[in-house]
Amino acid sequence: MGQALRPTADPAWLLSEVGYDPLRESSFETRVAISNGFLGLRGALATDLGACRTLPPRTYVAGLFDTALVGAPIPERLPAPDWLQLRIGLPDGPYLACPDPSSRDVTLDMRRGLLLTQIRQPPGAALDIRLSTLRLVSLDMRGIVLQLVELAVEQGMGEITLDVTSGEASPLLIPVTTEPDLGVWRTRQSGKTLAIAMDAAVVIDGRTQPPTVRTAGRWSWSLRVQAGQTVVLRRNLAVTRGDEPVDDPGGRARSDLALATGLGWRGLLERHETAWRERWDRSDVVVEGDPEAQRALRFAVFHLNGAADPGDERVSIGARALTGDDYLGHVFWDTEIFLMPFYAMTWPQAARALLTYRYRTLAAARAKAAGMGWRGALYAWESADTGDEATPAQVVGPDRKVVDILCGTQEQHVSADVAYAVWQYWQATDDTAFLLEAGAEIILETARFWWSRAGLEADGLHHIRGVIGPDEYHETVDDNAFTNVMARWNLLRGLDIAALMGERWPDRWATLSTRLDLAADELESWRRTAAAMATGLDPETGLFEQFQGYHDLEAIDLSAYAGRSVPMDVVLGRERTQASQVVKQADVVALLALLPDEFPGDADAVNFDHYAPRCGHGSSLSRALHGVAAARLGRSELALGYLRDTSAIDLGDSHVAIAGGVHIAALGGIWLVAIFGFAGLVVHSDGLSFAPRLPAGWTRLSFPVQWRGRDLVVTVDLVRNVLEATLRGGDTMVVSVGHVRRTLSVGWPIRIPLPSTPSPVAA
Amino acid sequence: MGQALRPTADPAWLLSEVGYDPLRESSFETRVAISNGFLGLRGALATDLGACRTLPPRTYVAGLFDTALVGAPIPERLPAPDWLQLRIGLPDGPYLACPDPSSRDVTLDMRRGLLLTQIRQPPGAALDIRLSTLRLVSLDMRGIVLQLVELAVEQGMGEITLDVTSGEASPLLIPVTTEPDLGVWRTRQSGKTLAIAMDAAVVIDGRTQPPTVRTAGRWSWSLRVQAGQTVVLRRNLAVTRGDEPVDDPGGRARSDLALATGLGWRGLLERHETAWRERWDRSDVVVEGDPEAQRALRFAVFHLNGAADPGDERVSIGARALTGDDYLGHVFWDTEIFLMPFYAMTWPQAARALLTYRYRTLAAARAKAAGMGWRGALYAWESADTGDEATPAQVVGPDRKVVDILCGTQEQHVSADVAYAVWQYWQATDDTAFLLEAGAEIILETARFWWSRAGLEADGLHHIRGVIGPDEYHETVDDNAFTNVMARWNLLRGLDIAALMGERWPDRWATLSTRLDLAADELESWRRTAAAMATGLDPETGLFEQFQGYHDLEAIDLSAYAGRSVPMDVVLGRERTQASQVVKQADVVALLALLPDEFPGDADAVNFDHYAPRCGHGSSLSRALHGVAAARLGRSELALGYLRDTSAIDLGDSHVAIAGGVHIAALGGIWLVAIFGFAGLVVHSDGLSFAPRLPAGWTRLSFPVQWRGRDLVVTVDLVRNVLEATLRGGDTMVVSVGHVRRTLSVGWPIRIPLPSTPSPVAA
Repeated sequence: MGQALRPTADPAWLLSEVGYDPLRESSFETRVAISNGFLGLRGALATDLGACRTLPPRTYVAGLFDTALVGAPIPERLPAPDWLQLRIGLPDGPYLACPDPSSRDVTLDMRRGLLLTQIRQPPGAALDIRLSTLRLVSLDMRGIVLQLVELAVEQGMGEITLDVTSGEASPLLIPVTTEPDLGVWRTRQSGKTLAIAMDAAVVIDGRTQPPTVRTAGRWSWSLRVQAGQTVVLRRNLAVTRGDEPVDDPGGRARSDLALATGLGWRGLLERHETAWRERWDRSDVVVEGDPEAQRALRFAVFHLNGAADPGDERVSIGARALTGDDYLGHVFWDTEIFLMPFYAMTWPQAARALLTYRYRTLAAARAKAAGMGWRGALYAWESADTGDEATPAQVVGPDRKVVDILCGTQEQHVSADVAYAVWQYWQATDDTAFLLEAGAEIILETARFWWSRAGLEADGLHHIRGVIGPDEYHETVDDNAFTNVMARWNLLRGLDIAALMGERWPDRWATLSTRLDLAADELESWRRTAAAMATGLDPETGLFEQFQGYHDLEAIDLSAYAGRSVPMDVVLGRERTQASQVVKQADVVALLALLPDEFPGDADAVNFDHYAPRCGHGSSLSRALHGVAAARLGRSELALGYLRDTSAIDLGDSHVAIAGGVHIAALGGIWLVAIFGFAGLVVHSDGLSFAPRLPAGWTRLSFPVQWRGRDLVVTVDLVRNVLEATLRGGDTMVVSVGHVRRTLSVGWPIRIPLPSTPSPVAA
Repeated sequence: MGQALRPTADPAWLLSEVGYDPLRESSFETRVAISNGFLGLRGALATDLGACRTLPPRTYVAGLFDTALVGAPIPERLPAPDWLQLRIGLPDGPYLACPDPSSRDVTLDMRRGLLLTQIRQPPGAALDIRLSTLRLVSLDMRGIVLQLVELAVEQGMGEITLDVTSGEASPLLIPVTTEPDLGVWRTRQSGKTLAIAMDAAVVIDGRTQPPTVRTAGRWSWSLRVQAGQTVVLRRNLAVTRGDEPVDDPGGRARSDLALATGLGWRGLLERHETAWRERWDRSDVVVEGDPEAQRALRFAVFHLNGAADPGDERVSIGARALTGDDYLGHVFWDTEIFLMPFYAMTWPQAARALLTYRYRTLAAARAKAAGMGWRGALYAWESADTGDEATPAQVVGPDRKVVDILCGTQEQHVSADVAYAVWQYWQATDDTAFLLEAGAEIILETARFWWSRAGLEADGLHHIRGVIGPDEYHETVDDNAFTNVMARWNLLRGLDIAALMGERWPDRWATLSTRLDLAADELESWRRTAAAMATGLDPETGLFEQFQGYHDLEAIDLSAYAGRSVPMDVVLGRERTQASQVVKQADVVALLALLPDEFPGDADAVNFDHYAPRCGHGSSLSRALHGVAAARLGRSELALGYLRDTSAIDLGDSHVAIAGGVHIAALGGIWLVAIFGFAGLVVHSDGLSFAPRLPAGWTRLSFPVQWRGRDLVVTVDLVRNVLEATLRGGDTMVVSVGHVRRTLSVGWPIRIPLPSTPSPVAA
């Protein structure tokens, strides 16, 4: 077993920490969390006891929502009962009630998707034991958890006890079945079920030992051991979620467990490692010349690969993925704008499942729009299992005062963001089946929402009043440029879809348009709305006004606040911030990152240079989109700064803010800066183009990408000053750099010389 | 029982809340916490179940410290196992798993020291039950907790179960005895024991019902009930703490419980209410004309009376008293500077116990000084049970980054603060026994510390370098005015004590000075040190420089940051704040409040006007001392603003920041502003003087006060423009207002006309 417990040799694949720092522990447990899109395990050690804990251990199950809070009925993702606890009794007391800080060595092996620990008993004990553990949530069979614990007795002899216990369930989970090898619970209100089946075995020197106690919640072994012996505990869990009353999650858990047990731990581990190898093969981004950026990208891609489940169309990715409690597991625009590009371009099956979640919640989005007096579909700003609006009405602000949250009614751009993601997915994959079954309807219904939402006024323009844009510092604003331009784009894509379907799939169009009651005159009305949408664009300068009246607000010199350690709204207070030009996060800059074609000529630089100095980056999402825009402007060093600052959110060493989970959208943003920014990837109808602008020091950037059934690897090599592309599978396609277009086929890698001078750096 | 469950009629004695708001619940539980200096119970309802909780329920036991955290070994006050839980099972499921928000009515009856609740089952249940509860921690027998629960069956009939359970103990508490009516635990490291004995009875219609289960941790009753019946559960707990190995806290708990049970709940309640009546009689401050200020003072005095235990000399009052987890129960200068005046002037027995705690920890203070290379006694900045330094080396800052904390080594003024409190107590009480047994030694040993600490330098002055004053924004500063002037004062009081003892108690002095090895030449050296202490005073202007170089730091206009919702160091960042004149909290102004005689002529106004605008009030302690100083300057409206802002910390409605406990020093500060500020109380060697300057609207301010065995009531009456004083006990004394001195005797109340014009308001 020793080999399995040894981490990957190359340290670039590892996150390690020796010792124990109670102040940093909860963030460390976030950073080394392992997940597979269905299950997430935070990095709390199974063998620590209470006194060392800073947060309870957490096992998350995607989609296991129920509503708990009285007075503020918001669905929250329930943690599953913690079935990974282990108590070890030694002759002189419990093992490692608090580990000697220097004795603990925890390693996240990102290559293999494993969390490994080595712990040594402090000296002076009757039995000197070296403890090694391994845990995984299988990327091959997503309900399976494997835990291996090896106790090597180095000195002494005596009696030890092993107690395998399960923690208490959330009070929202009602026990249905409580057996030694199976627990089943149902939620109080949401009609879901959870089952956990367990098998555990203890082996000494190759001989399996029967447990002395085997009850629900506790299996125990009493063993006499002596120096030179090795005790191995193996535990498999099979976790299932049931969504319908007829589901039998207990039966499924038992049969999954039987399958896993049949494979044996070696078989399970091997299949898991193979699945990770395949994922890395499709997604690993390699940077040469900048180890810090390499580390940022490796960490980002690791968590991105752990966040999604291509087999589950009922869930999407919460703001902290499956790594922490913050935001209660709720789904935001983060998934569509910050994560979808990664999945669409490296893991289309996962992207499709995530978008299908939006299709399954389309009814709730229609109901939300109708409830507010509009037509079409208005997605929830915060979405849980049903897609009903789940934004809390109030939260406790950074100053510990209760503030009202208006995003649930006003932050409507999310509907356009979902449509944007559907379109991007379709452009990247050409997945016509998805478009016809789900995607078209999403785009049409969100377009219809904007059509009903943007009222025609006396000035002949359609206005969208009373919204919140990405910049949440400014509430109830009129004609937010991001919202309105995205809405116009959404309307135009709706018209494109209608035209395309009418032409290519007239029967399908007839059925769908009838079902949606979408007549030609309504489409014509969409076209007029799009054509006369107010956008706040100054045609003279190319500058968008972020919303009506923004330019008249108080200008604040943000450089005077460089030392601050909290967001600007906290510095200035809510009222003054609202009356100022301080932007919380990329808003017009986000539009520039998403729809660069809306910024012709030098409008890109004009808008970037106007808004970037006004942005306080009060959201973890902000800097990455600035980075994409800056890289496209050729300002690679600036973009690299945004990338590094984004990476520091989760990886910064002094930072202890991530107890609530990794910032998965920021991690997606790091990938965006690298691929859409530095490599300059653009998706076209006949292939992909690149406009590399690597920052100084990066000698090589290499990454796999998928496009419409093709699987290629792209390398920007600054030593040889070429872009290399190799097609590993799929039909011939076009790859271009600048004006050079080349045909790429399997077996015929291409090299395109890079323009000798990179794009000029704008002022 | 109905009468007992009904709150005091006058709403000015009540804090009530109807309904349930999960965001505010944890702060509400703080606000309605009840305590008696030995036990503290936060206001979590016994009958709420898990899903409604925002924080675990808490029972605190003063002085029950142990060291938990690995890597940062700091003693923390352990919560006791929660022995007040109650689960009620009804035919259709558990009662009140989450109460209907509108059905809950919680009232803190401050007059009687009770927490009362009324809860009604949501309609539609098989049994319609009205639930009323009462709880108290006895002010008469401080280890006793009484809980009464009345279930009135209004409709229906059926089986109910009552489960009286106890929560899990902290992992730092090791069970020693686990019996149905007694639990005993010992701490892992600090050698303390805790015992809880319990008795519970269920009575229906006057008939006591035997429990169906009676095990350690759970007593249960199964009952058939019907409409019209009333079920009463009575539970007594007796809690004891053992500090020495020979203590038998289990035996004491059982005998205390027998005593309490013998009294019956009516007897217990009556004695508790009598004890509270006596405390209010000695401490209630009555304000007419300003209900908000009346509420602030009532709330403050309620918690001040609940924070102290005159019978326990091993504990002092933590920064959040016995109402919350923050600061781990640690004791700061708060007790001596912000709380001691209240106790010394209204409850000398409590004051004496608190100062005896400092005497019992004098050895640790000597060891700390010696360990740092100095002589005498340097008290811990944060003190727990032993008096060893308990300041954490690092904490997580408001920006969630780890910051180093230097206060444990540098914030040394605490030693002078302890000496100051001893002196004030002695002035207020003339408690010679305490002075000779404990107080003199504290003052002498702290004086000696300053003598060794303040080095003579080439300029002929004694300097104290490398300290932190009350303004913790500036670390490692030289000659902090507060520190140095307090140190000089400490040295001079040490010399006074030596002279006084030598003259009045020469034998005692001979013994003490020999034991302390305190020779005449050392005392002479103290005198020289005091005479040549650097203080930063500009003799021209009367302005103190807060520390060397302060005047040269960056000036920041704080009015430009009026909207901020976080402290200034968070706004500006740590580095810039340290390089600026922004003061965290009253520092020179604190000196002005404590030692007004150090500010002759108009130096009081000069210093106040210089420093008040530079203060960011980044501590809850800051505004009250500004209020005292402002009131003494005749700026009553300004002072009232400080009082109101201080009160809002714990009572402000939108504020949810007090989950960690009430800010007991701020509450003490409210009393200071009223009595030392608005009434203008000054203690003299022959009596008390007053200089009333009530704020506009206050028509009457009345309060009891004790002085050297006298018990008097003072009333400032602006309607009749007099100060009235009535002596309720003790020898004749002098009371003066301005230049008018009167003799006050029992049976002969006096009235002194107030000066027709109040002191002029300085610019």
